[in-house]
Amino acid sequence: TRPRELGIKIGVLPTGTLNAITDVTGVKVGQITLSEGTDIRTGVTAIVPHDGNIFQQKVPAAIYIGNGFGKLAGYSQVEELGTIETPIILTNTLNVPTAVDALLDWTLGQTGNENVRSVNPVVGETNDGYLNDIRSRYVKREHVLNALAQAGSGPVAEGNVGAGTGTVCFNWKGGIGTSSRKLPVKLGGYTVGVIVQTNFGGVLKVNGVPVGEELGKYAFKESLDKSSDGSCMIVVATDAPLDARNLKRLAKRAIMGMAQTGGIASNGSGDYVIAFSTVNRVLQDAPQSTYGATLLNNDYVSPLFLAVIEATEEAIINSLFMAKTTTGTQGHLAEELPKEKVLELMKKYGH
Amino acid sequence: TRPRELGIKIGVLPTGTLNAITDVTGVKVGQITLSEGTDIRTGVTAIVPHDGNIFQQKVPAAIYIGNGFGKLAGYSQVEELGTIETPIILTNTLNVPTAVDALLDWTLGQTGNENVRSVNPVVGETNDGYLNDIRSRYVKREHVLNALAQAGSGPVAEGNVGAGTGTVCFNWKGGIGTSSRKLPVKLGGYTVGVIVQTNFGGVLKVNGVPVGEELGKYAFKESLDKSSDGSCMIVVATDAPLDARNLKRLAKRAIMGMAQTGGIASNGSGDYVIAFSTVNRVLQDAPQSTYGATLLNNDYVSPLFLAVIEATEEAIINSLFMAKTTTGTQGHLAEELPKEKVLELMKKYGH
Amino acid sequence: TRPRELGIKIGVLPTGTLNAITDVTGVKVGQITLSEGTDIRTGVTAIVPHDGNIFQQKVPAAIYIGNGFGKLAGYSQVEELGTIETPIILTNTLNVPTAVDALLDWTLGQTGNENVRSVNPVVGETNDGYLNDIRSRYVKREHVLNALAQAGSGPVAEGNVGAGTGTVCFNWKGGIGTSSRKLPVKLGGYTVGVIVQTNFGGVLKVNGVPVGEELGKYAFKESLDKSSDGSCMIVVATDAPLDARNLKRLAKRAIMGMAQTGGIASNGSGDYVIAFSTVNRVLQDAPQSTYGATLLNNDYVSPLFLAVIEATEEAIINSLFMAKTTTGTQGHLAEELPKEKVLELMKKYGH
Amino acid sequence: TRPRELGIKIGVLPTGTLNAITDVTGVKVGQITLSEGTDIRTGVTAIVPHDGNIFQQKVPAAIYIGNGFGKLAGYSQVEELGTIETPIILTNTLNVPTAVDALLDWTLGQTGNENVRSVNPVVGETNDGYLNDIRSRYVKREHVLNALAQAGSGPVAEGNVGAGTGTVCFNWKGGIGTSSRKLPVKLGGYTVGVIVQTNFGGVLKVNGVPVGEELGKYAFKESLDKSSDGSCMIVVATDAPLDARNLKRLAKRAIMGMAQTGGIASNGSGDYVIAFSTVNRVLQDAPQSTYGATLLNNDYVSPLFLAVIEATEEAIINSLFMAKTTTGTQGHLAEELPKEKVLELMKKYGH
Repeated sequence: TRPRELGIKIGVLPTGTLNAITDVTGVKVGQITLSEGTDIRTGVTAIVPHDGNIFQQKVPAAIYIGNGFGKLAGYSQVEELGTIETPIILTNTLNVPTAVDALLDWTLGQTGNENVRSVNPVVGETNDGYLNDIRSRYVKREHVLNALAQAGSGPVAEGNVGAGTGTVCFNWKGGIGTSSRKLPVKLGGYTVGVIVQTNFGGVLKVNGVPVGEELGKYAFKESLDKSSDGSCMIVVATDAPLDARNLKRLAKRAIMGMAQTGGIASNGSGDYVIAFSTVNRVLQDAPQSTYGATLLNNDYVSPLFLAVIEATEEAIINSLFMAKTTTGTQGHLAEELPKEKVLELMKKYGH
Repeated sequence: TRPRELGIKIGVLPTGTLNAITDVTGVKVGQITLSEGTDIRTGVTAIVPHDGNIFQQKVPAAIYIGNGFGKLAGYSQVEELGTIETPIILTNTLNVPTAVDALLDWTLGQTGNENVRSVNPVVGETNDGYLNDIRSRYVKREHVLNALAQAGSGPVAEGNVGAGTGTVCFNWKGGIGTSSRKLPVKLGGYTVGVIVQTNFGGVLKVNGVPVGEELGKYAFKESLDKSSDGSCMIVVATDAPLDARNLKRLAKRAIMGMAQTGGIASNGSGDYVIAFSTVNRVLQDAPQSTYGATLLNNDYVSPLFLAVIEATEEAIINSLFMAKTTTGTQGHLAEELPKEKVLELMKKYGH
Repeated sequence: TRPRELGIKIGVLPTGTLNAITDVTGVKVGQITLSEGTDIRTGVTAIVPHDGNIFQQKVPAAIYIGNGFGKLAGYSQVEELGTIETPIILTNTLNVPTAVDALLDWTLGQTGNENVRSVNPVVGETNDGYLNDIRSRYVKREHVLNALAQAGSGPVAEGNVGAGTGTVCFNWKGGIGTSSRKLPVKLGGYTVGVIVQTNFGGVLKVNGVPVGEELGKYAFKESLDKSSDGSCMIVVATDAPLDARNLKRLAKRAIMGMAQTGGIASNGSGDYVIAFSTVNRVLQDAPQSTYGATLLNNDYVSPLFLAVIEATEEAIINSLFMAKTTTGTQGHLAEELPKEKVLELMKKYGH
Repeated sequence: TRPRELGIKIGVLPTGTLNAITDVTGVKVGQITLSEGTDIRTGVTAIVPHDGNIFQQKVPAAIYIGNGFGKLAGYSQVEELGTIETPIILTNTLNVPTAVDALLDWTLGQTGNENVRSVNPVVGETNDGYLNDIRSRYVKREHVLNALAQAGSGPVAEGNVGAGTGTVCFNWKGGIGTSSRKLPVKLGGYTVGVIVQTNFGGVLKVNGVPVGEELGKYAFKESLDKSSDGSCMIVVATDAPLDARNLKRLAKRAIMGMAQTGGIASNGSGDYVIAFSTVNRVLQDAPQSTYGATLLNNDYVSPLFLAVIEATEEAIINSLFMAKTTTGTQGHLAEELPKEKVLELMKKYGH
């Protein structure tokens, strides 16, 4: 059950219909879960910006690096040109090259891309090596291509699924989470959707309630352990007409949503936010030297900032509530968040 | 009364003795408050890294720009060289040049600086123009020099004081706030101190409690107003042996503390973090081409990240609790946070 | 005489009519030269983007930091919002606050700005302290306001003028220089104009000819002196419809033009490029939430890159050719580039 | 024959013994050339910082992005932590994931790395798709591992070799080039070595001589073609004790050396500089929380800046002189630089 159905209402803005990144029209998500035997706990989550040929019709985009201890592929070209030209793949750390290669296959193979000789795949990761025998690099190209093939609109599976199959967050089982906000018309009416792959640590708060402290599980409680390391990948989609500069600002705020859950972006964390807009597509072969764009004024972006902060916080909490206790490689165990206790705590703390 | 004395205990780490930036040995703070008639509500807050000639003995430093809608002076040289060579001054937006000029006077006039022809003053600001007739630029060089002259160790005044005299935060009276954390020996034993000038908005939370919502005062509640604009200046000091790279990372986390209070870094906000270390001073005239430094390994910085997040959150909350209702220019009114109601809310929410 | 009239033709693209930044329609330059007695060798150069109220009608802009050992004012807000809202002032290092204050006076005082309470002045500088008694801060607000008042289109004075009055470049007298390129229609037909304040060092080349080596004057010839320190301010204007992202890229290329003259961006150099476009103005009070813009596609920016590289190189060489031998404070002497010898060298090297 | 042996002496500083990146003690280079049939014109160039276990003994490093239209792997972690923990691989654009995967194999397989679960491979690329059937991704892991296995000190092959097998530069055949500078003792005595993979365009100058113009081959001569696109990868090694901040500054200057050859960093160019120091290694498992480092003062870095500018310029020119006329996929032809004509031009221009 998602936390919101349990009465945990994060933030002041309304969610979209599905409370998912797929509330942004045209955005699709596909996931492949690899969970076999004792050692395989990993997978792939694909976010597809639109139904068309993405290479030919790129989307305005930006990537913000919260903490760069990670292996994200595709950063510099997005930063330079302000566009993304492939779907976004999330997977485990050591399978980034596999996913990059698969995105090359996928893009080079599309009708209309017969002469394409340069592609900038965007792939993010977190390290699921506590539960998954990550050194074996179980993800294969086929898994990535399958995730892309299965991508759909509609509700998005959360918890132990896709790239979240083997992740650990705040010392509990983490995973995939998603959420969205739809601004009231007076604030622009735009939708902001977020999907996260949670694998980080700190001092957990659930809607402001000090759950980490109360449960006695938080960073550095006993020693300078590295349990707070691990990473958070955040993908943000919006239908607001933001250019790359304002998308970067939007991305930057997502980390503030992570902060509200008690994340600390520890030294060993790879915390990245990839933000794109579904409007103002950029054509690979522009018919003329200039193009017209309708863009949001700087003065109108702040409600979107609040929206992304709230949706990121909720997506992370969703990932924790939807994840299930998992054992994995070397007998490692990641327990799920004890929902009943948490709900008691929520009550104790007036929610 | 400071919130901690009222039972509001933010975070899991212990504070320093004074719970102030001056817990970092050698750091001094001086403040000049300008509050006269109906129109003057402004001032100066000076942070002095050490007692010596700061130009000759620079401190390792970094500046992180959370949101750059601001007029901070000194950014690029700190970024390039990794050092600060003057005290740090906070004041109002339109008096930045006054403060820069005063820091030039101060530095050029010091014994040993007779031949200095280049100085990089670091001055931050927020816009107190709601309460203060800011266009009149009431701060004069003398005020800045007086703030420097009065700088002392010991407790730091909070609320309507110095550069916080005329600021507004979460639609309540803001001001100056400070806090610190002292890591347990097992986590390194270092101290992190923070001082803030609060003038921003969002959806206020006090130690996780949704005070903004409960009091019915938060950003975009009714419309796309600009009340969330305004800025937050944050200065961080530490005695941990961090180089400029790790100080930048430390500075970046302070924004995560601001996020925990419900700040959103809105479009019109100038949110800057200036972080410096009091160890590994850099000499203006190095006796030889190389220098030796003892530096903290990357693996050991995470507890400092948690410390700065907690201290920033608490410093902001302190600024709100210590500020007093103020009327100013054009009859504008900024009410102080209704502490009794807030304390009731804290109880209601289990604290 | 300007080098081009002496047969020194830099680059492959044609210049604009005046071979000056004022070839970009609407751009004006005003300069005040302060040269009195033995100690005063400084001044002000103002670049005005357009004739209107610049605060109300901002221009798209970006600032690139080649080397940040400098005191430029205004960086972070330009970076964040992508606009400049005041004229650009160049002066000496220690008079930056004076110029900032003067731009505040100028902006606050304009009709239509009666309620403005936040302004982001952009001021650049180089250190003329070798010839000018810089510690005395001779530039006053009036000088800045006069430079603005005198700003005009038409030819731009070069050499020992304005902010270039006391500068030294490649160990010769430097100063102000300007140049422009007008792209052929097939490459877009746009104009790029550059103005520089030259005060840096390295190993001088004039249109590829190793003048520094031949004249026996270049960096580190004898020792690790600091003669290559000092800074280069570069302002770039264009009528091409570039947004802030592409203006940043344009700015970045100007440093490549500086490189062609043999500049090395030494440790002590403050090398900044401020680039703005005169089209797609951004209104302070936008009538609605979105605005329409016509923007150049990424694929069409490369000729502008070549243009700014060439114009920057030529502007720097112009500054050297137009400067005159100057004595200044403490009896310091900066000789002008020995033009006859240089012309001989140009011949010797086949030009 | 290398240009220097032909009398083309670039710069004022002396080269190292080999005039190669391998003049930096401990640095090794290995290259695999794939040139078969009509379609395969690609390869791998590996740069190995030292003989030990690089993951366990990382080197201080930085990456500067001149223009980010490229697919370099590894950027963000180098930026965040200031270290490189694998050899550096250069190859073609679409084989970056292959090389990343191979570096994972290599690193995971080394003695002492049995428990490593996170590795940050650094791989650069340029697009050899004009001569090479790049879509077929001919480079396999074995090629990368072989390049690493063959890495040696001593002279470095240049021209059509390794990752330069299929590249095109200034519309001539490009390739691999290398050069070095050894500072005189009075300037520190340090060595700076550079290796480049040249695949970019502009208006070629050879030691200041306008070869591109004279030969009638340069960017935008006839139209807005994309021949200036393509990329330049630059790797810089030094034994100077620079930390990551100063290595970033060093890297930034390499682009100024590229500028001296007439490169313009066009829109479609991926121009990256990876710089590392061979001293002050950073241990994966530090024995204690702090480490001691001996570092170069900022004031002493400028001669290194001049060194890297000169070495980069010469390495690029070397790549052009050493490359041979090549036909490739689809019958495409890249002619080598006509050395005799160029030497005549050098004479004509006084060299």
